[in-house]
Amino acid sequence: MLRELLHEVKNGTISIDDAVSKLEDLPYKDLGYAKIDNHREIRVGYPEVVYCAGKTVNQVAGIIKFMNTRDNNILGTRATKEMYEAVKRICSEAEYNELARTITVKKKEIAITETYIAIITAGTSDIPVSEEAAVTAELFGNKVIKINDVGVAGIHRLLSKLEIIRGAKVVIAVAGMEGALASVIGGLVNKPIIAVPTSVGYGASFGGIAALLSMLNSCASGSSVVNIDNGFGAGYLASMINKL
Amino acid sequence: MLRELLHEVKNGTISIDDAVSKLEDLPYKDLGYAKIDNHREIRVGYPEVVYCAGKTVNQVAGIIKFMNTRDNNILGTRATKEMYEAVKRICSEAEYNELARTITVKKKEIAITETYIAIITAGTSDIPVSEEAAVTAELFGNKVIKINDVGVAGIHRLLSKLEIIRGAKVVIAVAGMEGALASVIGGLVNKPIIAVPTSVGYGASFGGIAALLSMLNSCASGSSVVNIDNGFGAGYLASMINKL
Amino acid sequence: MLRELLHEVKNGTISIDDAVSKLEDLPYKDLGYAKIDNHREIRVGYPEVVYCAGKTVNQVAGIIKFMNTRDNNILGTRATKEMYEAVKRICSEAEYNELARTITVKKKEIAITETYIAIITAGTSDIPVSEEAAVTAELFGNKVIKINDVGVAGIHRLLSKLEIIRGAKVVIAVAGMEGALASVIGGLVNKPIIAVPTSVGYGASFGGIAALLSMLNSCASGSSVVNIDNGFGAGYLASMINKL
Amino acid sequence: MLRELLHEVKNGTISIDDAVSKLEDLPYKDLGYAKIDNHREIRVGYPEVVYCAGKTVNQVAGIIKFMNTRDNNILGTRATKEMYEAVKRICSEAEYNELARTITVKKKEIAITETYIAIITAGTSDIPVSEEAAVTAELFGNKVIKINDVGVAGIHRLLSKLEIIRGAKVVIAVAGMEGALASVIGGLVNKPIIAVPTSVGYGASFGGIAALLSMLNSCASGSSVVNIDNGFGAGYLASMINKL
Amino acid sequence: MLRELLHEVKNGTISIDDAVSKLEDLPYKDLGYAKIDNHREIRVGYPEVVYCAGKTVNQVAGIIKFMNTRDNNILGTRATKEMYEAVKRICSEAEYNELARTITVKKKEIAITETYIAIITAGTSDIPVSEEAAVTAELFGNKVIKINDVGVAGIHRLLSKLEIIRGAKVVIAVAGMEGALASVIGGLVNKPIIAVPTSVGYGASFGGIAALLSMLNSCASGSSVVNIDNGFGAGYLASMINKL
Amino acid sequence: MLRELLHEVKNGTISIDDAVSKLEDLPYKDLGYAKIDNHREIRVGYPEVVYCAGKTVNQVAGIIKFMNTRDNNILGTRATKEMYEAVKRICSEAEYNELARTITVKKKEIAITETYIAIITAGTSDIPVSEEAAVTAELFGNKVIKINDVGVAGIHRLLSKLEIIRGAKVVIAVAGMEGALASVIGGLVNKPIIAVPTSVGYGASFGGIAALLSMLNSCASGSSVVNIDNGFGAGYLASMINKL
Amino acid sequence: MLRELLHEVKNGTISIDDAVSKLEDLPYKDLGYAKIDNHREIRVGYPEVVYCAGKTVNQVAGIIKFMNTRDNNILGTRATKEMYEAVKRICSEAEYNELARTITVKKKEIAITETYIAIITAGTSDIPVSEEAAVTAELFGNKVIKINDVGVAGIHRLLSKLEIIRGAKVVIAVAGMEGALASVIGGLVNKPIIAVPTSVGYGASFGGIAALLSMLNSCASGSSVVNIDNGFGAGYLASMINKL
Amino acid sequence: MLRELLHEVKNGTISIDDAVSKLEDLPYKDLGYAKIDNHREIRVGYPEVVYCAGKTVNQVAGIIKFMNTRDNNILGTRATKEMYEAVKRICSEAEYNELARTITVKKKEIAITETYIAIITAGTSDIPVSEEAAVTAELFGNKVIKINDVGVAGIHRLLSKLEIIRGAKVVIAVAGMEGALASVIGGLVNKPIIAVPTSVGYGASFGGIAALLSMLNSCASGSSVVNIDNGFGAGYLASMINKL
Repeated sequence: MLRELLHEVKNGTISIDDAVSKLEDLPYKDLGYAKIDNHREIRVGYPEVVYCAGKTVNQVAGIIKFMNTRDNNILGTRATKEMYEAVKRICSEAEYNELARTITVKKKEIAITETYIAIITAGTSDIPVSEEAAVTAELFGNKVIKINDVGVAGIHRLLSKLEIIRGAKVVIAVAGMEGALASVIGGLVNKPIIAVPTSVGYGASFGGIAALLSMLNSCASGSSVVNIDNGFGAGYLASMINKL
Repeated sequence: MLRELLHEVKNGTISIDDAVSKLEDLPYKDLGYAKIDNHREIRVGYPEVVYCAGKTVNQVAGIIKFMNTRDNNILGTRATKEMYEAVKRICSEAEYNELARTITVKKKEIAITETYIAIITAGTSDIPVSEEAAVTAELFGNKVIKINDVGVAGIHRLLSKLEIIRGAKVVIAVAGMEGALASVIGGLVNKPIIAVPTSVGYGASFGGIAALLSMLNSCASGSSVVNIDNGFGAGYLASMINKL
Repeated sequence: MLRELLHEVKNGTISIDDAVSKLEDLPYKDLGYAKIDNHREIRVGYPEVVYCAGKTVNQVAGIIKFMNTRDNNILGTRATKEMYEAVKRICSEAEYNELARTITVKKKEIAITETYIAIITAGTSDIPVSEEAAVTAELFGNKVIKINDVGVAGIHRLLSKLEIIRGAKVVIAVAGMEGALASVIGGLVNKPIIAVPTSVGYGASFGGIAALLSMLNSCASGSSVVNIDNGFGAGYLASMINKL
Repeated sequence: MLRELLHEVKNGTISIDDAVSKLEDLPYKDLGYAKIDNHREIRVGYPEVVYCAGKTVNQVAGIIKFMNTRDNNILGTRATKEMYEAVKRICSEAEYNELARTITVKKKEIAITETYIAIITAGTSDIPVSEEAAVTAELFGNKVIKINDVGVAGIHRLLSKLEIIRGAKVVIAVAGMEGALASVIGGLVNKPIIAVPTSVGYGASFGGIAALLSMLNSCASGSSVVNIDNGFGAGYLASMINKL
Repeated sequence: MLRELLHEVKNGTISIDDAVSKLEDLPYKDLGYAKIDNHREIRVGYPEVVYCAGKTVNQVAGIIKFMNTRDNNILGTRATKEMYEAVKRICSEAEYNELARTITVKKKEIAITETYIAIITAGTSDIPVSEEAAVTAELFGNKVIKINDVGVAGIHRLLSKLEIIRGAKVVIAVAGMEGALASVIGGLVNKPIIAVPTSVGYGASFGGIAALLSMLNSCASGSSVVNIDNGFGAGYLASMINKL
Repeated sequence: MLRELLHEVKNGTISIDDAVSKLEDLPYKDLGYAKIDNHREIRVGYPEVVYCAGKTVNQVAGIIKFMNTRDNNILGTRATKEMYEAVKRICSEAEYNELARTITVKKKEIAITETYIAIITAGTSDIPVSEEAAVTAELFGNKVIKINDVGVAGIHRLLSKLEIIRGAKVVIAVAGMEGALASVIGGLVNKPIIAVPTSVGYGASFGGIAALLSMLNSCASGSSVVNIDNGFGAGYLASMINKL
Repeated sequence: MLRELLHEVKNGTISIDDAVSKLEDLPYKDLGYAKIDNHREIRVGYPEVVYCAGKTVNQVAGIIKFMNTRDNNILGTRATKEMYEAVKRICSEAEYNELARTITVKKKEIAITETYIAIITAGTSDIPVSEEAAVTAELFGNKVIKINDVGVAGIHRLLSKLEIIRGAKVVIAVAGMEGALASVIGGLVNKPIIAVPTSVGYGASFGGIAALLSMLNSCASGSSVVNIDNGFGAGYLASMINKL
Repeated sequence: MLRELLHEVKNGTISIDDAVSKLEDLPYKDLGYAKIDNHREIRVGYPEVVYCAGKTVNQVAGIIKFMNTRDNNILGTRATKEMYEAVKRICSEAEYNELARTITVKKKEIAITETYIAIITAGTSDIPVSEEAAVTAELFGNKVIKINDVGVAGIHRLLSKLEIIRGAKVVIAVAGMEGALASVIGGLVNKPIIAVPTSVGYGASFGGIAALLSMLNSCASGSSVVNIDNGFGAGYLASMINKL
């Protein structure tokens, strides 16, 4: 595109002033384009993402209204039901996942990967976080297999699912309390593991610190950790890896 | 005994002054007796214990010299080699366990329990702590079975030892880093588990805090936790439980 | 059983394919058995337990409805009154302990131990935690003696109960604030002590951290610690020990 | 293999007793094999790893002596020079990387990936950690490109290397102090990023906590975090991802 | 003035008693003057400030009522809408900035500086804090330029504003989450930077601690940090520096 | 009294059974008496105290109803208005201090000390804590002088009150935020200072931790610290010291 | 004195310039006098104090050399033996207490109080801290009674000393580990208690934090806390209170 | 320059390929220039800075050797004596400040500001940090006035220096322990204050955290905070402000 512009300059089909203006924008235009479409290099079918927490209902609705003028699917995370209802009024095909607290607007179908991401929770209470990961990964076009409530309190539950887990290209392990799930999977499965500590627990779980530290100190190799309750981040990174 | 004393008062076989003195001592006499023999109700064969850390070599030697005038076995914990050598000069049968950093003086044989305590470590580096527990439990007359290096990074190592662990009356689980061992055992074994976090690890293990929090938040029931690196405390408590 | 299977293979009474399938399942069958009956080795009269916090009312009701199809008593911990009411509609014999926040369904009588668990609180505000421990221990068939409000601010209150405490097979010490109760009991009683820090306190109690650290550092031997406010865990472990 | 064994049973070429013994071992044999060769499914050319910290010189030498009887390359991490010298006496081809503190024994050449891992440091002091990652990744057969000293204090240094970084299949970002490097790369590069906080810094860096928290809270998606100073873990995980 | 007083004493135009009284007050008179006008050396046009948090509606209204009897502009920070309404009844020209949570009473125009303060936020959610800084700086007579939502997740957004930022006399950088904005600006701009961590974030952001530590450990020189969410402090200090 | 009892035994004016019973109670009787009257040695005019937080309205009312059957004044701390209203129905002379959140029942006048306690706050928001201290100290019969809002932001305000502060027998310094008040007073006044950190502040004040640490590390001698927001504890201790 | 100066001005016996100079100094002269003699109002017999930690040997020797030109006794705290030896060369009557790490120079006898301070330690390892308190209190002219090793692990040891403790005017309670000693004494003794947490302990004692928090949260009234290991501060404050 | 380039394109004096290459580099060329001269806009007389901690002696010597080929003065911070000696061999005019741990190479005189920076310490032990600030500020061409040992334990010492402090353009306040110095100065002086917490202290000072939190929570406006012990950062920022 740069080359074309220079040809236009040479040919005089664009004035030097206009070319200066465009060129000044250029490095920013690419980035600026990313700015509009989010700074990441947007590829076909990729959703646009808005983190709704700490924004007003009006701000969320406004941002999604703007995104809706374009072709991409849309993902709103940490959205309240009230936000969803405001979005729904603007954009009737919006859907809300109450567990994951996500708003999704599916504007076109995208191809689904053949390889899959396994998303595993230690307990029922971790499901909101794993659902956020799942919604994210799926909207990015990944096949997802969910395995819930296989925490180490009853390790046979996990062992019985080993083949499915080992078949994944990348594994997301979601656990609160002592977060041992990630280590145990790491000791059994030879795949990249994204460990997500959750704030599930009480007392000395300190809102997820116990699980976070446990996962950071995992004696099993091949895992890394995202922020407490960060299902979106795990789903996004897993999608990146699954599509390599 | 109180009743007898009062009969003596009534009969005049003890003067009121002497009775006052004895009665004043009475509540303290019971306790005072414990004072002399250590505050714990000392039973036949029980060792006397001295925590050597923060004491000078002379203090440790002096205390053990005094203890040596009595019949009980003696246990010194957190002892340096230098302390041991000073003790050795006083009491030639003293022995030193370099890993456990314990001084033991075995003055008489004690009966060993038929039931056993299983002491399990996650990794090689946890062995100094487990050894302290083992030395303690053994000197208190317990049968001990040690199982080392079965951490969750290779959970099959643990699974292959399940029957031995399940056969124990009480289990001590010693682990640093993420401390998941205690949870995993708790999910597999229906026995009281004493979890001992160790300071093994680096970075976000924070000198054992990660393992400590992990163990306190264990999603498996039936376990409780002692202080970081507190092998003695675990061995002592396990002995109490094993002898119930 | 393995030997019998191989004889069947040799005799041709089982096809090699069927034998392969059975043998592949074998290690999981043992574990799988635990799966069906909950990972703990369920014995006659033992309750099934559901931790209600972080579950929806419907989830709790659904789980208990399923459990109710079996013979065991049922214990729901950290249950809200609303959860109880939903359970009550399904299962009319359900009972709610408002202090302990427990739902219990007693489907059959179980034998009560002769030995007893002493459950001791430092102050009135610690009672919800001790009640959770008591409900748990009792539903598991243990004799329980409760001693409330004997914190170290008035140590004579504790001293006057010493004989009862010393008569227990295992002691649960529940305390918030500075948590000194566990140490003091540990210095007076020669029984296993399960220390439960509570979140009672303000300021530098940091939601139970002060009591937790105090209990972990107890200079008295024979005690171990469970998570802050974890009455259930203490009751469960005490039951294990009391039944040894 | 199971099928073959059963055929042997049927054919009588193996006694039932021998078959029982082999079958009993079977689940453990698979795992047991992993035990010997490390629990992970070892593939051709993969090194065997020993974490040397917290082990004695003799233990490290003994472990590597045993590993040396097999065909795989060997990696010892967190090794002191003294450990290296003991290993050198046993195994003359051992090499020591003083910066990375690694012992490597290269027993056979392994194929190197065409895709590469970019390993980036914020400052000179982070290089020991990045070297550990590089040695690990290279011994696992990965092409590695190292970019040092491009921290955000002079962001143009980073920007000038963007094309190389964007060309990697996976990026390792190593930074101490405020750890902003990982976020900035995350905002510029659309590849999986493994963030490694280091203990470089002083005062309120708290031994790497500042960098760790910074990385966990990165507002840029696509990154995850390993333990403070955990170069090995980052290299191992990056290798896993690079080889997908 | 002291000299004049002594001349009066010498001349007898003031009694010794009166002089004693005046001299005793002297050191306090200077300070006492500051007391009335706030301890800071109040100059023409400077606002009087009241921190409203932790005060009752009546207290805030009472303080502003008193301030209103004087000539200076008035700034109330951390004010609720209810406080504003109470103030409004007393002082009809009071204005409320809902985002900044400030009450301002502009009683006279003040000169605006030619140099300007650049106030920059990483994200939309940081705006309440930056607004507090802006309102403060403006009421103190500073020209302010606000640049919002240029966090490092899309660093091109920041780069496109570099010239404006470099033109400022002092920069306020407001960021939550990992707080990398301040470091990145510090690496690009050669001006004093006041970094304001915000409590924006979740999980391991710990209410702003992650951003605070990140900013304290900035590898870029020329920046310093104020308390989490302390927009007022940043605006006040920036005003001081801008007016040097 | 012990001697008299023994004379009665000797004389037969008391049966041995009765004497046994009395003697068994003896050590507890002294303490037991304290038990009834609160464990503190109650002297004439001293109030009985109940800490209301964490108790139900009924519990508080019940305790005060019982206390009301005796002669002493009564102090309830951390009481809600609802608690007060329940108490008021039982005991019409009860009074409520809304700032201090105290219920007081004055059943008799007590002598007031000539020496006084100075209670000083850094800011208006600290007054609830200082009021709790003041109500406590006054109900215990102490003369109290309150000096509010003399924090170090305007140190002249403090300096102007120095003579009053220096005249006190003991000083209570109440401050949140950075808690420097206690150090500054400690540097100016040669009297025992009880420093009370408050939870006033935001961000990195961490609910009073900043002030607490500041006060514990005071470079001025002669001060000690009570728990965050513990006005009662400060008032109680100051009363003890003031009455020495 | 101010009055006299003014008379001199009036009388012309002092020039106005000299008077200006003196008057300018006046508020500072009082304080300045304190500066020379230490800012505390020095009374006859009070020692001068130098905190030696963080000073060089030469600095300590220089300060004490200067102090030695005056009449007061001298106390150096946290002094190394090397510092002592340097002081000894300057001032031959200097004495060193190796446990307390204090240098004392007794230049005149001071009267000893009739009332006494009880200084109590939980364990042998706490003695260095209690000795610092004792040396301080004694050099300030207080009668001190020391009671060592009466921690709550054997509470009868404490109970047997109750009368002596109750006879004190003020009590210093020195304890590490869980620090329960202060609470227990607080529950038994109706005197002001200065609680000194020590860094004695390991693991979750976190260098004295456990004891510190325990003491701050004491459920017994009448106690306050100084910094970890701050024997000097406790001794200084106890002296203040003992002399009231 | 951009315009000129386009004219060249139009005129054909540059090929389109060359123009594409130049234009693509453009945003990096500006930044790349900064790279050579250090990213900060280097002005005449400004020193080049190397942070020596965490670098080897050879690295430090190598960097300074390279810097020495240019015209600027050189500052090495956190340098050991050994580093200095290596530098000295290369560059004989290098000087070492043992207190500040700085290496300076003065290659040309620079103009000194008329306005000055006041650098104030609370105590003698804070001087190494203040010296680092002073060396930095002086090498950057600032007039510096140092005021030591005026901590709040003797506030008159500070008060006597008020005029000098008020005369500064910017103030650096260096304090450990409770760090109250910064707040007190903030309450007395209407100038920008850079607060530097130091790691001076023990126990609950936690290596400077107490001072850091104190300074962040200062109730006095106009101050901001740098990292613990960061004298260089304070000196650098103060220089920036002093030269505005």
